[in-house]
Amino acid sequence: MTDWPDLAGRLVGDSHRLAVRVYYEDTDFSGVVYHANYLRYLERGRSDFLRLCGVHHNELADGSHGAAIAFAVRAMNLEFKAPARIDDVLEVETRLVRATAARLTLSQVVLKREQPLVRAEVEAVVISPDGRPRRLPKPVLALLLERVSRDEGPAG
Amino acid sequence: MTDWPDLAGRLVGDSHRLAVRVYYEDTDFSGVVYHANYLRYLERGRSDFLRLCGVHHNELADGSHGAAIAFAVRAMNLEFKAPARIDDVLEVETRLVRATAARLTLSQVVLKREQPLVRAEVEAVVISPDGRPRRLPKPVLALLLERVSRDEGPAG
Amino acid sequence: MTDWPDLAGRLVGDSHRLAVRVYYEDTDFSGVVYHANYLRYLERGRSDFLRLCGVHHNELADGSHGAAIAFAVRAMNLEFKAPARIDDVLEVETRLVRATAARLTLSQVVLKREQPLVRAEVEAVVISPDGRPRRLPKPVLALLLERVSRDEGPAG
Amino acid sequence: MTDWPDLAGRLVGDSHRLAVRVYYEDTDFSGVVYHANYLRYLERGRSDFLRLCGVHHNELADGSHGAAIAFAVRAMNLEFKAPARIDDVLEVETRLVRATAARLTLSQVVLKREQPLVRAEVEAVVISPDGRPRRLPKPVLALLLERVSRDEGPAG
Repeated sequence: MTDWPDLAGRLVGDSHRLAVRVYYEDTDFSGVVYHANYLRYLERGRSDFLRLCGVHHNELADGSHGAAIAFAVRAMNLEFKAPARIDDVLEVETRLVRATAARLTLSQVVLKREQPLVRAEVEAVVISPDGRPRRLPKPVLALLLERVSRDEGPAG
Repeated sequence: MTDWPDLAGRLVGDSHRLAVRVYYEDTDFSGVVYHANYLRYLERGRSDFLRLCGVHHNELADGSHGAAIAFAVRAMNLEFKAPARIDDVLEVETRLVRATAARLTLSQVVLKREQPLVRAEVEAVVISPDGRPRRLPKPVLALLLERVSRDEGPAG
Repeated sequence: MTDWPDLAGRLVGDSHRLAVRVYYEDTDFSGVVYHANYLRYLERGRSDFLRLCGVHHNELADGSHGAAIAFAVRAMNLEFKAPARIDDVLEVETRLVRATAARLTLSQVVLKREQPLVRAEVEAVVISPDGRPRRLPKPVLALLLERVSRDEGPAG
Repeated sequence: MTDWPDLAGRLVGDSHRLAVRVYYEDTDFSGVVYHANYLRYLERGRSDFLRLCGVHHNELADGSHGAAIAFAVRAMNLEFKAPARIDDVLEVETRLVRATAARLTLSQVVLKREQPLVRAEVEAVVISPDGRPRRLPKPVLALLLERVSRDEGPAG
């Protein structure tokens, strides 16, 4: 297999950047990206931010860290400011605003040439496979606490 | 073609109800409905609410009411309270909270046996095909104003 | 909860019909339904055909019939003949062509006013949660064998 | 904006490779990638293959090459051989088997560590915005003819 160095994006200072291409699948008949599809981009950004912090969904799910756990989105505030179109290259910027064993708060922006298209404030909680509240194992939480952003929010 | 009477849901008092089935496509590996897919359910609810009010995306887009216009989501506040699973029958309840020629505010809930799973406050604006702000034609706005809810918000 | 009589479509003779509405989510910037989204419609048709035969994904998955099993698509031949557009009402027609304990062959058409838009021949196999070949329990297979179509293929 | 060198994959000999990560959005409750989502991966591969050949959807659509045209999938044969799971890194290999002004035939494989998971034979045609058959402009066809594969099919 070829090596794909930037596939999970990059940690830059206390934020994470992931490049996302707009394909046919992302657009709708009005000519722009369908609003719900930005949530897919945002989730890719969060997953790859966690990945570069050393936290992997498959390891959490298969119980590599103790009992099986997963993240679930509990709340989102979304602002759609400008549209993206087919073939655009976007970037998802992710910052971890707060982290406890039970809950992460993240601030995210989808950018096109540094112009913000979508802003999101996201609350994710830790749950068991049957949906009950759980807590992150201490070593996992420690990895995340190192990455909590000192900024108020994303640029732009 | 067979007749499918409830395909666009039902207007009940000043709210709209649409039934939605959970299929494979809606779930993720954690066993429940993927959070972004509730936005697809919510958009189906809004589209069918508008349809039963006599407002159709295809007519707005092809200029049946004057210049071509479409709705775009400008902001959403989302609360995910409980998960849905494969084969579940859900209902999307939609209420129109405020309507002006430029902007609609809607309150929506995804319910499972009357228990709220997801709540959403949605702001949609009227735009031209190139994304500029536009205003609804008066007859279209009139259809919507008849349907503005007197309630504070959705049940539950 | 309201009653939604046609939500799972209807068994008509030895075929099944499901109504599907085209929403924003289904279209792409070229103005028509994105080709991969017809596979979602087809899967809804197969799921609801099975449902009306008395076979439920959640019961297969939770082991109500013995060991946990699921269906997986093994092969598909697809022909895209004409496009569908926003607000269209389509119907998915599903026929079971062959059924064994290990494998189902289905013939499906997506229709718009009885005109075929997409044709699909589908092979689905029975697997365990870790992906190994499994066999349907006899009572489940019996339910399906009653529904094998005597026709060569779908109408149109 | 940061530079993302491999975002559109790589042309290697007469084939194209694109890396694709499996995210939450791609999986279903059975634990593996939902079959229809491989079609999204395949379309990303075709789009980025065309992009690296110098052919861009946005330029075709906005009439940079004459009348507005787009590609539409006319037929697909799909074989699903093995599943992919959350966090997997996959590669989409694309080869152009035949090219005429009206029609492209492509052979594609989704690979995991060089093991084929999904194989697809794809026929795409050139259409106008209202769905009528069209022909590629000569300079665009010339770009593609340089890339027709001499191999019988993809490796594996």
